[in-house]
Amino acid sequence: MSESFQTIQSIGSKALLEKITNFESYKNENVIQSIGDDAAVIKESDDSLTLLTSDTYVEGVDFDPTYTPFHHLGYKIVSAGVSDIYAMNGNPEAVLINLAVPNRMSVQMIEDIYKGIYAAGKSYSVEVVGGDLKANHANLVVSISVYGRADKDAITYRKGATEGDAICLTGDVGGALAGLRILMREKKFWEEHGDESVQPELGDYQFVVKRQLVPEARKDLIESLKEHDMVPTSMIDVTKGLVSEISALSDASELGAYIYQAALPIAIETRQVADEMQEDVDRYALFGGEDLELMFTLPEKKVEEFVNHFNDFVVIGRMVSREEGMKMQTGEGDVVSFDDLS
Amino acid sequence: MSESFQTIQSIGSKALLEKITNFESYKNENVIQSIGDDAAVIKESDDSLTLLTSDTYVEGVDFDPTYTPFHHLGYKIVSAGVSDIYAMNGNPEAVLINLAVPNRMSVQMIEDIYKGIYAAGKSYSVEVVGGDLKANHANLVVSISVYGRADKDAITYRKGATEGDAICLTGDVGGALAGLRILMREKKFWEEHGDESVQPELGDYQFVVKRQLVPEARKDLIESLKEHDMVPTSMIDVTKGLVSEISALSDASELGAYIYQAALPIAIETRQVADEMQEDVDRYALFGGEDLELMFTLPEKKVEEFVNHFNDFVVIGRMVSREEGMKMQTGEGDVVSFDDLS
Repeated sequence: MSESFQTIQSIGSKALLEKITNFESYKNENVIQSIGDDAAVIKESDDSLTLLTSDTYVEGVDFDPTYTPFHHLGYKIVSAGVSDIYAMNGNPEAVLINLAVPNRMSVQMIEDIYKGIYAAGKSYSVEVVGGDLKANHANLVVSISVYGRADKDAITYRKGATEGDAICLTGDVGGALAGLRILMREKKFWEEHGDESVQPELGDYQFVVKRQLVPEARKDLIESLKEHDMVPTSMIDVTKGLVSEISALSDASELGAYIYQAALPIAIETRQVADEMQEDVDRYALFGGEDLELMFTLPEKKVEEFVNHFNDFVVIGRMVSREEGMKMQTGEGDVVSFDDLS
Repeated sequence: MSESFQTIQSIGSKALLEKITNFESYKNENVIQSIGDDAAVIKESDDSLTLLTSDTYVEGVDFDPTYTPFHHLGYKIVSAGVSDIYAMNGNPEAVLINLAVPNRMSVQMIEDIYKGIYAAGKSYSVEVVGGDLKANHANLVVSISVYGRADKDAITYRKGATEGDAICLTGDVGGALAGLRILMREKKFWEEHGDESVQPELGDYQFVVKRQLVPEARKDLIESLKEHDMVPTSMIDVTKGLVSEISALSDASELGAYIYQAALPIAIETRQVADEMQEDVDRYALFGGEDLELMFTLPEKKVEEFVNHFNDFVVIGRMVSREEGMKMQTGEGDVVSFDDLS
């Protein structure tokens, strides 16, 4: 390799993506939102918008087949895909699936992936309309593209929050990470004790393991928003962790955020896992990804109205001025900057 | 592995895809064409349709980086993607690109891929609106999804040809395969003679090497059809080889086809390469893929009219009844069945 060889690690994938997105691209006049939100937005008609999103999942990087049943994998990638459409306050309608498959996988395994995909299709009312199946040498690589639609009057971006808006969060967070911790511990146990050991008992951790393996995207929130004619001022889905998503939403809206740690919704089982692992459950909640919950902002008054219709969300903070930055008030009453949280 | 382990090879990827597409899927009422044509078709409004297509390219299976410059790779995957939209008589508008990248690739290499993608974006007037960049262990895997649109009155499927229609083909075929033959020969030469050997001289084969590395999708045909208010009765793009595409179009239209071998458009340089390789150039034309030409059907009368406006196509045969099957009349006047061609 020549001296000028620059590794991706040396600059980081985020910096690389920035370099690339700064390339001069052809601009299509119908494209309203390109790279930079949960989905791309393209003008369809005067009152309807097309939403597009795409993701890749790499075996050994994004999932580990030793503890991921293939039908769960299929279900999860669809959940994660449609979640990006919900995060724009849209409705997913169709998915395209590409598989690059190594020889060592059986027909049954591939079928299991698709069974999960089709089951998710039914849950989210999306049709599998395309994609392909290719051979790969080493590992399984799955790509999914999701097509959806939003009404022009309902579309919700990461940008759009205003100062004083309440930051709302559906469900609970940290559960998917707790599930991952359990699965990794069991994997280590199997590896150390071999095949003859007793089967692991995951029954005690059903809730968090399910959060990790087959998370559900929050279709229910989007349906309720529509039913009650409510449009958030901004929205994002929680896939990379709460701190990351709050930062992304604040940056896009050019505001700061003030979060109450005590308000973070954490399930009892998630707490139990953190206890067992002797880890801080608040870190699970702040940095754990893949929960597929939706975080959205609404003016305080609207929150009071909406809570009468939809009750699986809590207010975790409020949007503040850009100058105030991103801060969290701890359970003890201290105020810490997001920069000091990592 | 258990005794019931069934390898993909044992049933073939085609049979596997058939199994999967027979799974009971959720049906979206807006989906007009699901899996089975060059792109999926979704109803957008009363007079406009959405087109979606997605493909994956695997290093070592679909491309060989030893003779594929990365910017060419980027350009080619976009060309192949938009070609599927053109094959529906539509206009591509946006692409999403997913890369799974091994460590050994440099920042420069990734940038080169995107430079090719963005260059193709300009050629075909499509914007890069999304996708992601992931780490992979072994090899490069690229997925592309293309979004496009077609007028309801212009959409052209594989089905729709009627008996007697002329089978038309743009440009020439077999060139991409000829280019691949040259590149593979040069690769073998490099491998045998090592790094110290003189650089290969590809200048003599510029045309066919370009057909292999940076094929152009036939935007010009689609523009001309639109300009002259001409809608083919059916259409498909030539990516798997002519015999395969004629069969697919005939099957979809529930007809047979009668092809004149003497009419197959083959470039002089493609003939020269076949001569050098001591191979049959007609096999290049019939079975060589990746030319990205468009094959379409038109009533004879329409052909006479259209040829005054667009001249880079020839008539290679005509649609016949299903009972007559798929046949080719050779240069010597013999008639052979497609079944005997392989």
